Amino acid sequence: MAISVLVPLLTLLSLHMAHAGDPDILTDFQLPLGAANITGDSFTYTGLRALIGANPQNFTVFKATMAELPALNGLSVSYAALYYPPGSVNPLHTHPRGSELLFLVLGSLEVGFVNTTNYLFNQTLQAGDMFVFPKGLMHYQYNADANSPAIALSAFGSAAAGTVSIPTAVFNTGIDDPILAASFNTDDDTIDKLKAGLSH
Amino acid sequence: MAISVLVPLLTLLSLHMAHAGDPDILTDFQLPLGAANITGDSFTYTGLRALIGANPQNFTVFKATMAELPALNGLSVSYAALYYPPGSVNPLHTHPRGSELLFLVLGSLEVGFVNTTNYLFNQTLQAGDMFVFPKGLMHYQYNADANSPAIALSAFGSAAAGTVSIPTAVFNTGIDDPILAASFNTDDDTIDKLKAGLSH
Amino acid sequence: MAISVLVPLLTLLSLHMAHAGDPDILTDFQLPLGAANITGDSFTYTGLRALIGANPQNFTVFKATMAELPALNGLSVSYAALYYPPGSVNPLHTHPRGSELLFLVLGSLEVGFVNTTNYLFNQTLQAGDMFVFPKGLMHYQYNADANSPAIALSAFGSAAAGTVSIPTAVFNTGIDDPILAASFNTDDDTIDKLKAGLSH
Amino acid sequence: MAISVLVPLLTLLSLHMAHAGDPDILTDFQLPLGAANITGDSFTYTGLRALIGANPQNFTVFKATMAELPALNGLSVSYAALYYPPGSVNPLHTHPRGSELLFLVLGSLEVGFVNTTNYLFNQTLQAGDMFVFPKGLMHYQYNADANSPAIALSAFGSAAAGTVSIPTAVFNTGIDDPILAASFNTDDDTIDKLKAGLSH
Amino acid sequence: MAISVLVPLLTLLSLHMAHAGDPDILTDFQLPLGAANITGDSFTYTGLRALIGANPQNFTVFKATMAELPALNGLSVSYAALYYPPGSVNPLHTHPRGSELLFLVLGSLEVGFVNTTNYLFNQTLQAGDMFVFPKGLMHYQYNADANSPAIALSAFGSAAAGTVSIPTAVFNTGIDDPILAASFNTDDDTIDKLKAGLSH
Amino acid sequence: MAISVLVPLLTLLSLHMAHAGDPDILTDFQLPLGAANITGDSFTYTGLRALIGANPQNFTVFKATMAELPALNGLSVSYAALYYPPGSVNPLHTHPRGSELLFLVLGSLEVGFVNTTNYLFNQTLQAGDMFVFPKGLMHYQYNADANSPAIALSAFGSAAAGTVSIPTAVFNTGIDDPILAASFNTDDDTIDKLKAGLSH
Repeated sequence: MAISVLVPLLTLLSLHMAHAGDPDILTDFQLPLGAANITGDSFTYTGLRALIGANPQNFTVFKATMAELPALNGLSVSYAALYYPPGSVNPLHTHPRGSELLFLVLGSLEVGFVNTTNYLFNQTLQAGDMFVFPKGLMHYQYNADANSPAIALSAFGSAAAGTVSIPTAVFNTGIDDPILAASFNTDDDTIDKLKAGLSH
Repeated sequence: MAISVLVPLLTLLSLHMAHAGDPDILTDFQLPLGAANITGDSFTYTGLRALIGANPQNFTVFKATMAELPALNGLSVSYAALYYPPGSVNPLHTHPRGSELLFLVLGSLEVGFVNTTNYLFNQTLQAGDMFVFPKGLMHYQYNADANSPAIALSAFGSAAAGTVSIPTAVFNTGIDDPILAASFNTDDDTIDKLKAGLSH
Repeated sequence: MAISVLVPLLTLLSLHMAHAGDPDILTDFQLPLGAANITGDSFTYTGLRALIGANPQNFTVFKATMAELPALNGLSVSYAALYYPPGSVNPLHTHPRGSELLFLVLGSLEVGFVNTTNYLFNQTLQAGDMFVFPKGLMHYQYNADANSPAIALSAFGSAAAGTVSIPTAVFNTGIDDPILAASFNTDDDTIDKLKAGLSH
Repeated sequence: MAISVLVPLLTLLSLHMAHAGDPDILTDFQLPLGAANITGDSFTYTGLRALIGANPQNFTVFKATMAELPALNGLSVSYAALYYPPGSVNPLHTHPRGSELLFLVLGSLEVGFVNTTNYLFNQTLQAGDMFVFPKGLMHYQYNADANSPAIALSAFGSAAAGTVSIPTAVFNTGIDDPILAASFNTDDDTIDKLKAGLSH
Repeated sequence: MAISVLVPLLTLLSLHMAHAGDPDILTDFQLPLGAANITGDSFTYTGLRALIGANPQNFTVFKATMAELPALNGLSVSYAALYYPPGSVNPLHTHPRGSELLFLVLGSLEVGFVNTTNYLFNQTLQAGDMFVFPKGLMHYQYNADANSPAIALSAFGSAAAGTVSIPTAVFNTGIDDPILAASFNTDDDTIDKLKAGLSH
Repeated sequence: MAISVLVPLLTLLSLHMAHAGDPDILTDFQLPLGAANITGDSFTYTGLRALIGANPQNFTVFKATMAELPALNGLSVSYAALYYPPGSVNPLHTHPRGSELLFLVLGSLEVGFVNTTNYLFNQTLQAGDMFVFPKGLMHYQYNADANSPAIALSAFGSAAAGTVSIPTAVFNTGIDDPILAASFNTDDDTIDKLKAGLSH
């Protein structure tokens, strides 16, 4: 069969797919096409075993989303395990597709989010505490303790909440200096300094 | 009419409204009517501090849902912490309004769910593993270890997933014996024995 | 074209499909890919003609869902016709993806469901009556009349509501005896007796 | 302020809230505010008993929606029973909030709908047949038999699908003649004749 | 690879696709399969440049929906630009999948919609005014000014709201005369006259 | 209790309820509690008449959302008119609850958004062009022309899309310097300078 025959078939498929969908899924679960042998393993993720005993030098996120466990597709839930060395920050960011419910397992943590009327809601958490970051709002977590790490587990109300890292998105994606300078009401030198600090 | 009469009426109203909510909301978050002073505390839940160091005799669930943290309303996410003493079971149940993503923190755990074509998907988890139970399907967790407890944290893709406990719903809500005997293709004596074992 | 060329194409497709979707559909209706000649027949189902004059010996369900009429995909509605010989039961079950509105056409019927706080709501229906079973909750129907059949038509708020049959899911899918015995607070002998009664 | 003044205010509130609902709810079910004593009756509708043995002279609809059975709020399903005397029509209409799955119980019926590319899909149904009218599309049913009535039961994928009757909406709501004449590319006399025929 | 091998693969695909979906999309955006080179152009539509300076003789709609800009898929928004020569009408119609928010840029406009209880809500707009037509309800716009054109921009809360043109759907799709005559309570001659006026 | 005390309570209630709404509603439309006299005016917004002939000195947004036109509640659509004097910017921001489809009416405009993998999609628009900013992603618009203003109309797929202004949310809500310095990998002096530039 020639590629020239397949292409229109796939084009037809593409058009059809663009139209398909349903609010909740219409099956018990959804696995990728060709997931031939569905067993208990299809619903299991062992990638976070590495988290136990881990002792990273920098702030580190261990994700368990639809990308890592495809069976989460359509089930509207996922996890991230977060490891904060002493004094480290999870920089300002938003999740465009899900709220986050953080459970602090170890240490203490400064957390906060800003609503759409520019009010900051913040808190100091101790182990055993939870804090919710509503969908789409900008937030951070900061381990102010200079000596002890903190560990948190975060649940998301989406299988693929997504992350917009504010420092990276603003200063490390190639947005022109005049646009940034005008946005932040500052000069090009300050913009260039921030760009340099965040490039890597 | 005194204000003292009106307040409980509005409280009732508030509770009702809080339940009439929805996945997508049109505000950053939703707090109950009359939640006058909104601060970081409004988004914090400290009720699971009790979990740390807990050592219950029986299988125990510590919930953190919209009932415990009202700010979860509309944010489509919640938690349960699960403590399994050696040999204990979280009996067969379903969650009608959310999928569950279980993360095993300690010990080992037998888990399984049955899909709508009556196929059992099961697994033996070790600490650090995750397993997902799709929305509305019957499932269980069982700590087969005779000596060591197990602890898990479960995330739900709903602020109020709800639980239907199969043994209780079937045998401890007053459904007539002939209906149960015919459903389970057994005799009234067996039904009565099961009812007795589950009443309390 | 070699299969080795097609496989990555389908993999790409699979990834794309896993991401596709929309709350309500974006077309008037959705028919399966390759449904070339769309006519009035595409929206018609004649499979329930068999219901008229049927007189089955056992409780029987005649379904008209997305599986039988593909045009229902995305339209959030389906039917089941239910035939209850004298003394027969539609055993305890749940529908994970839709509420059910039962309309009793003939005879009388005992119906009931249990909510998530373990309260039984039940009723005795006569011909012409309706009863609604909310999504995901456990329910039953029972024709207590020893002489006359009953016939009902049930509408579902989903094209594929799904069914979890409690007796089958619990006792006929291979869940280990200790898990069942612990769940139902009974002994292995009772579990084995129930398993034997439901195997076929 | 007397309690007797407050009650209607809260009733009004209750009605409004009942209408602000949604496909997915965060409780097992939703009853109107102040529905104090929730029993099996709360989920039962007996208003269609009148349908049995009815023999109306004109086309008649017996509805069972959220307006008649408030417990349907949030459960996304409802019914209409339709009685067609010989030669009668259910005039052209649309349902803005739900698809309709019609089940013909008795007689024969001409049915059809028009999609958004102006293609008519029609069919002649016999007893036992089903036909689906997708959400928001214009459709009709017509009993062409000059001697026998037809009876149908229609399920809707919404608790409040709503109906836009085309003849009434166009010609009996006070839209100005020039707008109607220009819309239908005809003269004022024809518009006035149609208005007269549909006023009552 | 033979076509006979590909067909079952595509059939499998079709079945899988019928099941796929999610309320909100699980990616930042969705482009058609095979949209290889994604750039800023993928999110740009230039087809309405033609609107500027246009001076059509008849009522004209310039659309910018998912059909014209595929990146709108999953983003729930689209546009139509509307040009009304003096005395022209946008005939009675409904949008089954989205509400319309019309902004009058130039001229004046008579607008109205009919709700499901057959009440007409109408208005005379001047430049700078907005009017909202709720989803699924029948509405019109009419430029009563005999000398000046009107121009409006309409936003829709769907990427593919769809349009049911009432005059065309009723009188120009082949619905039988007796059905139309009975629907509009008129005679076949009037129906035939209307059909003739709308055929083209 | 005087009616004058109850009224503000019910108003508060009304506002809360109006915000608890949802994409799909179960009525034709939803107006605030106590909106006694519903007419065509209830669906009309005249606040943008002021836009015509306006010539503001700074970048200015004229909004037409649910806050300005309450009838938009549940209808999932809204507008913003945007006026850009020469050289002005609409600073970096996100809309947590809706995608934006911008239509450039006058002038030229630099636009861009960053996806969740930190890729910038940008474009230079001329009058008559459209550009879509997907829900929840960071974006900007910039009028690079030193002499001519630009005017755009933006449609949103939500009645209350909300706005997170990045410069303000980051530097003008009281987030502690160490958190900001660590997030942006810079020193406290640079943070303080940026804070000073954005305070007002």
